[in-house]
Amino acid sequence: MARPVVRISESAGFCFGVERALATTLEAVEDAPEPVNTLGPLIHNPSVIADLKGKGVGVVSDPSEARAGTVILRSHGVPREMRQQLSASGLTIIDATCPFVTSAQEKAARLHKDGYLVVILGEREHPEVLALRSYAGEQSLVVESPADLPSELPSRRIGVVVQTTQSHERLAELVAHLAPRVRELLVHNTICSATEQRQAAAITMATTVDAVVVVGGRNSANTRRLAELCRDRQPRTYHVESEAELDPAWFRGARVVGVTAGASTPPDQIEQVVRTIEEIET
Amino acid sequence: MARPVVRISESAGFCFGVERALATTLEAVEDAPEPVNTLGPLIHNPSVIADLKGKGVGVVSDPSEARAGTVILRSHGVPREMRQQLSASGLTIIDATCPFVTSAQEKAARLHKDGYLVVILGEREHPEVLALRSYAGEQSLVVESPADLPSELPSRRIGVVVQTTQSHERLAELVAHLAPRVRELLVHNTICSATEQRQAAAITMATTVDAVVVVGGRNSANTRRLAELCRDRQPRTYHVESEAELDPAWFRGARVVGVTAGASTPPDQIEQVVRTIEEIET
Repeated sequence: MARPVVRISESAGFCFGVERALATTLEAVEDAPEPVNTLGPLIHNPSVIADLKGKGVGVVSDPSEARAGTVILRSHGVPREMRQQLSASGLTIIDATCPFVTSAQEKAARLHKDGYLVVILGEREHPEVLALRSYAGEQSLVVESPADLPSELPSRRIGVVVQTTQSHERLAELVAHLAPRVRELLVHNTICSATEQRQAAAITMATTVDAVVVVGGRNSANTRRLAELCRDRQPRTYHVESEAELDPAWFRGARVVGVTAGASTPPDQIEQVVRTIEEIET
Repeated sequence: MARPVVRISESAGFCFGVERALATTLEAVEDAPEPVNTLGPLIHNPSVIADLKGKGVGVVSDPSEARAGTVILRSHGVPREMRQQLSASGLTIIDATCPFVTSAQEKAARLHKDGYLVVILGEREHPEVLALRSYAGEQSLVVESPADLPSELPSRRIGVVVQTTQSHERLAELVAHLAPRVRELLVHNTICSATEQRQAAAITMATTVDAVVVVGGRNSANTRRLAELCRDRQPRTYHVESEAELDPAWFRGARVVGVTAGASTPPDQIEQVVRTIEEIET
């Protein structure tokens, strides 16, 4: 019987935007008019949201539900109309949108203004993408892969913006399909550098270990993408939200187990998973 | 013993830019001050150039060689400095640059002016590319494939222009490599639509025949590209300049032979090749 060695991937866990959103929210709990609510969950991590709830931070799903106090705009951003509705409401608004997400929104708005048909590479129902789309014009298209593109593109001038947590592989695949079909293609590679580094490190790690555990919310797009990229290199890849889900059978014969975590996964959650794996007899 | 059926690909032969350059030159022979010279061969087809020579059209390889009369700027365009030198010379200048090439030059100049590092997809020594590069800035890069890109890109804002006769496959491959490595990528797909249609038709044809003959100058980039695209689908693909090069051994057992031709290949040259193939006993 042996116990596995755990290798934690570089750049695993909290990114700048998430840390900033959390810090902003915790400050609001101290200083801002009560009640304090976030519009949608602040980040995609159930344990963090439960933690915030304990500190008095609620979640509303629509601006109309917030009748007093403070509303925090979450890291993924909110659609333009909702922002306008909130601005007119008289409530205290704190913007915890990740600055990289804001930058992508500005680029989408600019492309639309300049007459490009905007194509967003991202997950159609993800809040970041819903917000991004509100800046990209009515005609904009959301695609997860080239297969989602219409057979006839309605414009020969295409602008591309990318959900900040997408993978470069998907971006490469999309632009390879678009460029030959248009006269002009302006691509804003808005994949954030933390995502980039986290993914690159995870990919390298996945090829050198016997199994991979990816820690993070199942509703976290960047965590799912991370699991997908690792699984392409190491089929023994498992996505868990917490150590409670770990199954010793996954690690049979594994000497080295790699661990990585999404941008919204707090350090203590990673640590608990690591400690649990280290105790498994393989 | 049987004779092959010949299938001529759609859009084979002369394109708009070449027809225009020839018509312009033949007009010049009538009306413009003598002697009439083209700066470099007007198009990449030796038999057409020989024909023009018989009509009194000479070829100079440098502006300084033309001391009187008329200089015709060829379909591929000329570098900016040469154009300026000629404008100052007092000679009569007739511009037979293909309008699609001119448009690509304007786009390259605009990208450079807007601060993009310009990447030109094309053949380094081809006259169209040499001319294009003169508009794209000193730092611009010429690549035939992603392998020619430096490992460290000197800019995170890249603009792409394409030699008008490149293939869409190569463009797709290039942008797939570039997009993940930069923040902004502005691609002007300057592949001309005649090239596009000729290539698409040749590709379709190549998969349905027993052998392919591509007719055109060996110095013609678009003809070589056409041969390359056909060869990928049909290994029995042969590039010839005239019917004299046809080898009956190529067609052994072939029932259907496809023929296509580059943008600078005159109709009578295609016709002679077709007639000769039809007489071969396979």
